[in-house]
Amino acid sequence: MDLLKEKIKKDGTVLPGNVLKVDNFLNHQVDAKLMDQIGEEFARLFKDEKITKVVTVESSGIAPALTTAIHLGVPLIFARKHKSVTLTDDLYTAKVYSYTKKVSNNISIDKRFLNADDHILIIDDFLANGQAVQGLLEIAKLADVSVSGIGIVIEKSFQKGHAMIEKTGIRLESLARIASLKDQSVTFVE
Amino acid sequence: MDLLKEKIKKDGTVLPGNVLKVDNFLNHQVDAKLMDQIGEEFARLFKDEKITKVVTVESSGIAPALTTAIHLGVPLIFARKHKSVTLTDDLYTAKVYSYTKKVSNNISIDKRFLNADDHILIIDDFLANGQAVQGLLEIAKLADVSVSGIGIVIEKSFQKGHAMIEKTGIRLESLARIASLKDQSVTFVE
Repeated sequence: MDLLKEKIKKDGTVLPGNVLKVDNFLNHQVDAKLMDQIGEEFARLFKDEKITKVVTVESSGIAPALTTAIHLGVPLIFARKHKSVTLTDDLYTAKVYSYTKKVSNNISIDKRFLNADDHILIIDDFLANGQAVQGLLEIAKLADVSVSGIGIVIEKSFQKGHAMIEKTGIRLESLARIASLKDQSVTFVE
Repeated sequence: MDLLKEKIKKDGTVLPGNVLKVDNFLNHQVDAKLMDQIGEEFARLFKDEKITKVVTVESSGIAPALTTAIHLGVPLIFARKHKSVTLTDDLYTAKVYSYTKKVSNNISIDKRFLNADDHILIIDDFLANGQAVQGLLEIAKLADVSVSGIGIVIEKSFQKGHAMIEKTGIRLESLARIASLKDQSVTFVE
């Protein structure tokens, strides 16, 4: 998605440790128009997959997942994060480790919202090590729903998330694929 | 907003302790089409207020705030919640107590995103005791921006948030105003 790549080049900042800071248009301040176009693009890419629900994790996944759900005409579910170990029988739960924040969270979805005949599309803002996606795939397995695709706004292709998803055979579409963040500069995958 | 009130009547559940559970269409599973209509309605209500930015708090405020921002054609900012007491000079921060979760969180917005000439519209999914709105008003004051309006999806008018906002003189628009949740039943304000 050229528009997104231009925006990353223009407004993204590369910080030490392979961090790409895009909090001025993606995950703190949000360019609402761009976010709508991102949803439109995911809907176009996955329109033939008979998606019944879009699934993401709070918080920064909500914006691209919502616009995708609007353009596909299906509901959105956002998994909730929580620290507590008290789980209830009403929830599908998976453990997710965040490399950025160096903490483990449980993420969960109420059992009422996933049914065996669902075809879900997983959407997230970033793919790095793939922990959040892996957690959602675990929940999908527990709920016995099929995962028809994974849509990522910005993928850091040099980290292990991409390879992990490739191994599952699930269709992955990333709107911007970053090959390297060396020398404070963004290089996209050709 | 009649469509929303009908949805609350049909799909909402009243739990003991004046809790209205709407996690099947508002804040866990999200009715994407309804959320888009909610944003359209807020945009219609506030279209003459020269809004420059829509502001909310993660996570459940993001969906209605994003659709409002899309329909108004302005950026969205979502304040981040964090437990840490380490504050930096780069952030406007306020303390918010959650009656539901019985914990205090700091919420903050990066100083780069609020400027003295901004006219912000605060959007949130629920108004009960008004703690989140109060935190955002504190941040607006620190940033010296003017607050042109507050839009709430569901207001529990019998709790103290409504009166608190009324005292500030800021225009408040709530799409569904609940007068009572007595006897497991939803009664709207006439």
